[in-house]
Amino acid sequence: MNVDNYTIGYLGPEGTFTQKAAFKIKEANTDLKSYDTISKVLRAVENHDIKLAVVPIENSTEGSVDLTLDLLAHKYDLKICGEIILSITQNLLVNKNANFDDIKVIYSHSQAIAQCNKYLEKINKEIRSTDSTAKAAKEVLKSKHVAAIGNHDLSKIYNLKILDESIQDYQNNVTRFVIVSSTDHYLTGNDKTSIIFSLMEDKPGALYEILAEFDKEKINLTKIESRPSKKGLGDYIFFIDMQGHRSDENISRTLDNIQKKVGNMKILGSYPINTFQEVL
Amino acid sequence: MNVDNYTIGYLGPEGTFTQKAAFKIKEANTDLKSYDTISKVLRAVENHDIKLAVVPIENSTEGSVDLTLDLLAHKYDLKICGEIILSITQNLLVNKNANFDDIKVIYSHSQAIAQCNKYLEKINKEIRSTDSTAKAAKEVLKSKHVAAIGNHDLSKIYNLKILDESIQDYQNNVTRFVIVSSTDHYLTGNDKTSIIFSLMEDKPGALYEILAEFDKEKINLTKIESRPSKKGLGDYIFFIDMQGHRSDENISRTLDNIQKKVGNMKILGSYPINTFQEVL
Repeated sequence: MNVDNYTIGYLGPEGTFTQKAAFKIKEANTDLKSYDTISKVLRAVENHDIKLAVVPIENSTEGSVDLTLDLLAHKYDLKICGEIILSITQNLLVNKNANFDDIKVIYSHSQAIAQCNKYLEKINKEIRSTDSTAKAAKEVLKSKHVAAIGNHDLSKIYNLKILDESIQDYQNNVTRFVIVSSTDHYLTGNDKTSIIFSLMEDKPGALYEILAEFDKEKINLTKIESRPSKKGLGDYIFFIDMQGHRSDENISRTLDNIQKKVGNMKILGSYPINTFQEVL
Repeated sequence: MNVDNYTIGYLGPEGTFTQKAAFKIKEANTDLKSYDTISKVLRAVENHDIKLAVVPIENSTEGSVDLTLDLLAHKYDLKICGEIILSITQNLLVNKNANFDDIKVIYSHSQAIAQCNKYLEKINKEIRSTDSTAKAAKEVLKSKHVAAIGNHDLSKIYNLKILDESIQDYQNNVTRFVIVSSTDHYLTGNDKTSIIFSLMEDKPGALYEILAEFDKEKINLTKIESRPSKKGLGDYIFFIDMQGHRSDENISRTLDNIQKKVGNMKILGSYPINTFQEVL
């Protein structure tokens, strides 16, 4: 692989928010390549077909992108080496000659649908989910009875009419994407570290002991989220983001201590805080 | 309302897992009534049209049912008065005269799709989500090119062929439903209390102080989950389940103390542990 001329993979197709995010870190000597699932783009990094992957990980309205977290936790041995934060505006897109009354069904990605929950309840049309907002836009091309939810760019790429603008439930709607690689980022002095762990004992109260370790070392946590471990009800995996790099002395010591207390801990990576952040 | 002859609403239509759950608590003098969204069935309880609602809240593979938690947290002033735990088996259902090669698209509820993620990746067909597994089964009736994912009962109700059995990724797949009412359950001695709260300060580390309160009073937590507050990244609502009734002295005291520390706390209700649990 030539590092001077490398490829960034992203969850496609063309026109998705993830492509927009990937474009923010594209340089003159990099190519962008679309993959049709999160799993495929991560696998391409693991196989060294591409150097970096950009995938969504968290939305301020809908929370974690479960599939990304599950794949990073269970399937691939990859590291997060950066984050990209974009503000997200959803729009109702239709065929050039369609009007509101023509719409019989609305297609979009399940996260986009969830972000527009209140709007969709109000307009009361049939809703179907697709793998991406761009796939939904392609469905619109086939019929004037189909509408899609997605970003402005989709209307340009597929020549669609924007029937309703900024239809997401919360105006301050932000999505965090991560840049995934085979190694994480060196220390910059303004870093963040992401870890996942499951608890050895089958009781969530054990989380208290883990949090005590961070408290002792004055480590500032920026995120705590839980996901089911899939082993049974009440059995969780926790995702924690903290300020600092895993090579910082207090973080390194704390992670060693936690490692001894939990069943399973994985350092997802250390990377610069707001590697790229859109001005909001 | 006549309490001797009351109605239990559930997320329908007929044949969903939620109907199965509702049936477990149906008595001779109760009627079951189907509602087509979680919001509508909860609203019916708030309006006193029905006495109880049964809605899914958590799956061992896919985690919380976000919509139910969001509605209980933000929209309705209702209480959880019981829980129903069922083991869930998913199956691939097709038209009586269809075979595997006929299938062009697979419909199901997004949670059912997520529970069969590995299986679906293997068979590699187009996937669309519907509001319920029963709606997916109805789509199968229209075309031999459509398959649905759902429970055994659906194959009986809609006269469909089961092409593949028990296709969920994890064999120990369990869903927890809650019974929602305008009041919670009296003390039985084997109770559980569910609360939600957001943190006053915008730092997840503050969770440590809250957990210290439970630790001090030796209260056993059975669940800790976080959801975005929708106000911005890193701003969370926490869901905690604990053993005991909110009228127990140590729990009552702890909840009072937490109330003082957090921005917003809501007691979702106290109810008997495993009000109904299927033998696994």
